[in-house]
Amino acid sequence: MSLGPESLKGKKYPAKQHARNVYAHLKEKNLSKAQTSVLFISGEDNELILYSDQNKPFRQNRYFFYLSGCGIPGSHIVYQPQNDHLTLYLPNIDWEDVMWSGLPLSLENAKLKFDADEIKYVETLQADLESINTVHLLTTDINKSNIKFASILKEGDKDLFYAMDEARLIKDSYEIELMKHASKISDNCHLAVMSATPIETNETHIHAEFMYHAIRQGSKYQSYDPICCTGPSCSTLHYIKNDDEITPDKKSVLIDAGAEWECYASDVTRCFPINGDWTKEHLEIYTTVLKMQAAAMALIKPGASWEHLHLTAHKVLIEEFQKLGIFKSEYSLEEIFESKVSARFFPHGLGHLLGMDTHDVGGYPNYADPDPLLAYLRIRRDLKAGMVVTNEPGCYFNPFLLEDTLKDPKRVKYINKDVLDKYWYIGGVRIEDDILVTETGYENFTGITSDPEEVSKIVKAGFKKNFHNIV
Amino acid sequence: MSLGPESLKGKKYPAKQHARNVYAHLKEKNLSKAQTSVLFISGEDNELILYSDQNKPFRQNRYFFYLSGCGIPGSHIVYQPQNDHLTLYLPNIDWEDVMWSGLPLSLENAKLKFDADEIKYVETLQADLESINTVHLLTTDINKSNIKFASILKEGDKDLFYAMDEARLIKDSYEIELMKHASKISDNCHLAVMSATPIETNETHIHAEFMYHAIRQGSKYQSYDPICCTGPSCSTLHYIKNDDEITPDKKSVLIDAGAEWECYASDVTRCFPINGDWTKEHLEIYTTVLKMQAAAMALIKPGASWEHLHLTAHKVLIEEFQKLGIFKSEYSLEEIFESKVSARFFPHGLGHLLGMDTHDVGGYPNYADPDPLLAYLRIRRDLKAGMVVTNEPGCYFNPFLLEDTLKDPKRVKYINKDVLDKYWYIGGVRIEDDILVTETGYENFTGITSDPEEVSKIVKAGFKKNFHNIV
Repeated sequence: MSLGPESLKGKKYPAKQHARNVYAHLKEKNLSKAQTSVLFISGEDNELILYSDQNKPFRQNRYFFYLSGCGIPGSHIVYQPQNDHLTLYLPNIDWEDVMWSGLPLSLENAKLKFDADEIKYVETLQADLESINTVHLLTTDINKSNIKFASILKEGDKDLFYAMDEARLIKDSYEIELMKHASKISDNCHLAVMSATPIETNETHIHAEFMYHAIRQGSKYQSYDPICCTGPSCSTLHYIKNDDEITPDKKSVLIDAGAEWECYASDVTRCFPINGDWTKEHLEIYTTVLKMQAAAMALIKPGASWEHLHLTAHKVLIEEFQKLGIFKSEYSLEEIFESKVSARFFPHGLGHLLGMDTHDVGGYPNYADPDPLLAYLRIRRDLKAGMVVTNEPGCYFNPFLLEDTLKDPKRVKYINKDVLDKYWYIGGVRIEDDILVTETGYENFTGITSDPEEVSKIVKAGFKKNFHNIV
Repeated sequence: MSLGPESLKGKKYPAKQHARNVYAHLKEKNLSKAQTSVLFISGEDNELILYSDQNKPFRQNRYFFYLSGCGIPGSHIVYQPQNDHLTLYLPNIDWEDVMWSGLPLSLENAKLKFDADEIKYVETLQADLESINTVHLLTTDINKSNIKFASILKEGDKDLFYAMDEARLIKDSYEIELMKHASKISDNCHLAVMSATPIETNETHIHAEFMYHAIRQGSKYQSYDPICCTGPSCSTLHYIKNDDEITPDKKSVLIDAGAEWECYASDVTRCFPINGDWTKEHLEIYTTVLKMQAAAMALIKPGASWEHLHLTAHKVLIEEFQKLGIFKSEYSLEEIFESKVSARFFPHGLGHLLGMDTHDVGGYPNYADPDPLLAYLRIRRDLKAGMVVTNEPGCYFNPFLLEDTLKDPKRVKYINKDVLDKYWYIGGVRIEDDILVTETGYENFTGITSDPEEVSKIVKAGFKKNFHNIV
């Protein structure tokens, strides 16, 4: 089996065009600086674990990857916008290392693989940099590697970061193919997790199932640590223990996990009933979250305000909670909304930008916002075609999160405590899809169903197979 | 399913005894320093990925774990040997973090879990350290966390490292149970890999299979990146690509992978024929390596010289190569041995210490040794009861490694090139078991069979099952 998306076979990651994109944004921000600047970005290098001869897990610097498409540790790029020239520097050959690890990519093969005007070994980098006739040699950061020309670099330039982030914000067709491939892998993994429920007696089994199918498809690294929780733990947003027993009293599963492909992320959450049969309360909350997601989804298009979408989802939550009796119907939706009481049931933002980082650059969140409905919203700008965002409303019953609300007369008055008490056992529900903003609306990269009936069928089909617990 | 070894349920990791062990070695090395010293060790803290809001994968500092048994990021210990007092400091509660991640372990529950005289929050650490009346406050390194008392610490003390390493060298019964559990997990994983060969059409499938069974058993982190190679790639010692197609021309599989349990490593290599049927040459080399391992194994006991074991394995290789005709029989075994020609067929050491690190502390290798047979040997001391070592001879046919040998008249004269040429396709064979040195000999932690007939049966049994490729 050959790995990777068929649509990109024989094509190069468009590093050169990315360099041009960055330069265009730099010019727009600061024309005179742009005209007299050369860009220099270092990739990550291998780094030893303290007191150990093993390397730390390698993760390529995303800014570097954007301008190179190169995942080789210890590489660098120089982009000279004045003559539109991109040079990729690969690490010198270390013959001791070759003995143990084999020969690295040759310069000839690197030429075929990477979209650069010139590919050289790093041994010439210092002299090359010193010979460049430029006012500013801009870089994001000075890499810890033993490069000695730090003095001629201008580190941490704000305009450069702005230009890089704005360029990365809008995904091109190549990046979209990579993200679709990552999403496809995640779809298969989530389907496998739902189907394997009968052999899952501990949360770590869910984690294993996801990882198995991701690695089988060539995604060795996940975009983030998979969150695999059951029962009341579904209310812990950043649950990463993944090691509780799945006892019969638990009814709900939440899995938030996404595969990575060539540095590009997917980020998908699915919830399902542990034996395929939705409990009344679980289905009620699931349907609420699905409606929140649908209301936000219908508004996704260029020019839409992300804050408006987020607050629309809050209003749907309030409306549904009134129908269920969790919120009292004697108060108006508007009054409950203004009280901010929904913030502790849906404490996170509607979603975030997605790209090479799971929480991708360019969202300009304001974590100091005094409004509890907006403080954790990771996108504070209007949508543009080419942005990829997650649409991931949630609804949680977390005793710790709700503690202050339930003691606050100004907010607790909206809540029917007796009705609320029926929902704690669920923990929470989140539904998360990866969405490309298009010229006319949106495209959903996430293919795994979130229809509650279909989800139930998939889980139940698992029980009909001849699974036996291998371990 | 509850995770972890039954034998340790209800028991604490013996951190206090470990502190006493370290102090005993410190006294032996430098009595006056030991009598006037207090030990301070910081664990690792969470660290963000550059330009990202995600944490780097967390790996606890092994020296800290040895003195605490604590895997919580941002913790510290102080051991005052004068009154045999061990204090564990846990990170202060961050309420913002609790909102997203839930409540941390309480001090009361920490008392039940960890073997320390006192457990406190880190907020009192600086004042506590300043109040200690001591000449030396020894530490391995000054942690990057925002502790402000760096000036009163003596960092990187050589005697402290010596004492820690000598203490860690000898495993106690608790550590042995952890290592046996890690080995048991690895056994199950290797068995699963061998059994699943029919659905493995790419090396990444082998990797996935190992990871699946490791994570199912609760081992989220592996001791090192699994090495999964097929065909000629089996000759690359540190192969980590794991993404080649398994085409019909490939006959051999080598998988070097070990699960970790509570910071303790296992490290196991198995080789098998891809369809269960050994080719003539593959079996010949496999049998050679098995004999090398058996010869070394028979010598394992306290007082044995690891160098002697290693060189014994080389002699077995030479003897077997003469039988196979790869080395010419007209030369004496001793002459071939003295020529060092075997170093490029078996280029690595016989094995290494194993513990919290895969290549554990206390081996005192000499990578500058001019003898090519010994330069890469990671243990240069005699065996003691309580040491855990890997016994992992190997035999490789790597064109790059052998290039200089085949051009060197002094060494190539021992080689029948025509015979050698029949073996390249195998790549290489390594067989690796984890061995505890006991008072009377050794105990093998590794349970997965290395018998070539049994291995063949396991692989073939996989083909009889109703496997279908899910992905």
